[in-house]
Parts: sequence; C-alpha cells; structure tokens
Amino acid sequence: MVTPILTVDTVLLTIVDSELCVALHQREAAPFAGHWALPGGFIHTHEDDSAKAAAARVLEVKAGVRSPYLEEFGTFSGPVRDPRGWSMTVVYFALVPVVSQAAAMFPVNQLPNLPFDHSQIVSGVVQRVRSKASYSSLPVFLCPTEFTIAELHATYEVVQNEAINIANFRRKLADLDVLEPVPGALRTAGRSRPSQIYRLKKRYKDALSVRERGI
Amino acid sequence: MVTPILTVDTVLLTIVDSELCVALHQREAAPFAGHWALPGGFIHTHEDDSAKAAAARVLEVKAGVRSPYLEEFGTFSGPVRDPRGWSMTVVYFALVPVVSQAAAMFPVNQLPNLPFDHSQIVSGVVQRVRSKASYSSLPVFLCPTEFTIAELHATYEVVQNEAINIANFRRKLADLDVLEPVPGALRTAGRSRPSQIYRLKKRYKDALSVRERGI
Repeated sequence: MVTPILTVDTVLLTIVDSELCVALHQREAAPFAGHWALPGGFIHTHEDDSAKAAAARVLEVKAGVRSPYLEEFGTFSGPVRDPRGWSMTVVYFALVPVVSQAAAMFPVNQLPNLPFDHSQIVSGVVQRVRSKASYSSLPVFLCPTEFTIAELHATYEVVQNEAINIANFRRKLADLDVLEPVPGALRTAGRSRPSQIYRLKKRYKDALSVRERGI
Repeated sequence: MVTPILTVDTVLLTIVDSELCVALHQREAAPFAGHWALPGGFIHTHEDDSAKAAAARVLEVKAGVRSPYLEEFGTFSGPVRDPRGWSMTVVYFALVPVVSQAAAMFPVNQLPNLPFDHSQIVSGVVQRVRSKASYSSLPVFLCPTEFTIAELHATYEVVQNEAINIANFRRKLADLDVLEPVPGALRTAGRSRPSQIYRLKKRYKDALSVRERGI
C-alpha cells in the first residue's frame, strides 16, 4: 500500500489598502519551483505536536507571522492534486492586522495562477471567513491591538465586501460583547468629535464570540 | 523524516429507542485488538478518490451503511494518540435513520472506554451536531424517507436533548423549507386527527438547509 503524501497549507489573510489579501510564498522546490503558492510544508514528526502546530511553524518560517487565531478549514485530498502522487493537505487559516516583509500579499480577487488546488482552497477559505464574519467577532483579528468602532466597521465591510449599516453594526457588536474601552484613549480625526478607542477583552485574544443572528 | 500514520475515522449516528447512538466496531488488529472503537482505517490510495471516499468505504465495509450525508468534522493528530507513532486521523460524521445488523450501536452518553482519542472525537461530533441542529435541517437525516412533523419534532428533541416548543418548531421548519408533503399520504395514530406525511425535497437529499436564527 502506497503511503499518502501529507502536508499542511496556510491561508494567511490581512487587509492592505482596504482590500482583503492573502499571503503567497515563492516555492523553492519542485514541483512548481518558482511559482507563487500558499505557504505550506510537510509535518515534522520530530518537532510538531499536531498538524496545527505544523501550520503555526510554517506561518512563522515562511511568512514571518505568529497568528493568535488559527483555525482548521478542512482537508483536500486525492490522487491527482499533487503530481508526486496521492496526497492530503490540512488547510488552516489565520487573520492578522499586519504582515512582515517576508510575506507577499495578493488581493484575494486578483491572484496569480496557483499550483495544486490552491485557488480552490483560497476561495473556500474566503467564503468561510465571509460567512463566519456575519455572526462572529472573527474580523477583529484583522485590526491592530487598539481601534475605533469606525475602523472595525470598515474592516467588517472589507471582509463582507458590502456596506453594513452602522447603527445595526453597533447593536450587534454590543451583543458579541468582545470589546472594552481603553481607559482615557480617544482618537481625533479632522473636525469630528474624538472617538473612543477599544481593544479586545482578554478572553477573546485568541477565541471567537459568536451570536445567533447575523451581523 | 518519519512519515505520519494517516487514517480516517467515522462517527455514525442514529436514534435507537429515543436515544442518540453511535456505531462502534470491534477492532480486529493491534493496537487495541478486541476493543470497541470508531469504524476507521487507512486510506487505500489505489481505490479511494479522497479521504471522504475512504470514510464512505469504511462505513460500508465496517458498519454496512451508505450515508447520503457525510461531513468532515476535522483532524486529530500528534505524537501520542496512537502507540504506533505520530498519527493523524480525519474524522467524518454521518446521520442515518437505521443501521444494519453489522453495526453495534451505543448511546452516546453510555460509551465503553474507547482507545486512542475516540471518546474525545465522539464528544466533539455530538456537540457539533447539537449546535448545527439548532440552525439547520441536519436531524432530518435521522428520519426515514417519510415522516410526520411530530416525528421530526421528536427527532430534534432527541438530538438537542431538550424540549422544543412545537409552534416555534413548525415556524422555523417552514423557514428551512426542506420538506414537501407526500401527496395523499396521511398517518392515523389513535383517535387524533390524521397527520400529513412529509419527505425531503430532492435537492436536500444529501445537503443541508441552514437558517440564520436558531431552532
């Protein structure tokens, strides 16, 4: 019996210039050497405690990022997705406010041709993130440590790729109950009234809050 | 580099005597030969088109079941879960109305000691199914081809493990819009008014309908 090839791949999302972007990495080894692809690699059984740990290691080595939020998306497998033979990859996705110079970011709507089934993987993750954003605090992980409600609202709009009524947004955000005001911190933009600055409550630093009704 | 052991495991759920039950299979080979465990096995790269296909094959061979609904739950992996070495299993769950004699069914709340991390896997799947039942048509797959609303209501109550207001249930079921009446089919029970018999609409035979608010 032939042993399947087993890898992990990561979909690292962030916002650049109001566009949802994904990190790609130029492959060094065959197959597809030199091509842009999702940061991924083999599981190192001598150092990885789990597939998720392998994904965290790959993100750090290939994209220079430690993401507080890392979720398993699912597996992709079969005899034809990798020219080397029957293979399975476990896909994880991460959302971060900024990425280091190590990673090249591409808008999710303008990707180069990707090898394997990586285009399908990115589409699937973007769809999952959009859907999950509609009822959870997920997009908060795209914001820096401190932000205003207007900034978070803009982030949700980029993720959802649609306008979101600000009054509804404030009410639903209150339901999620993930934010706390940073004491005494206000931001002034132009002539408008100074805005309170918020941060995530400690228990949501690496976890989601989920509500029953969509945002 | 040591290659990880890669398997699939299946959590097959059905209702027996108003209790949610899971199929267990007596292991033939080491490790844990003779122990009850989830039906699982290696991927056969010469015949399985995907990990999901491997799970469907395992269900058919070890539990005598073809499930129209089969969903990936997630992976479990690491250096210590299998005494043979670093391993990963991809877990799938299925819901069926009845099971063949091939499978032994155990109430999910009264399981024997299970090897590997199988107890944790069953708990995780039951939690996922309960949560998903609250906003989708998932429990319908536990019903036979034709059923009354009262029967479906009872099925939801078993899955959710709580009483569900019947009027709310009817309204939310209408939202899901997955059922059609079987023309001219009525069921009479005792002295009560005959009940219309329903079936799944064709497009939901192997797919879910999901609503924004919980059932």
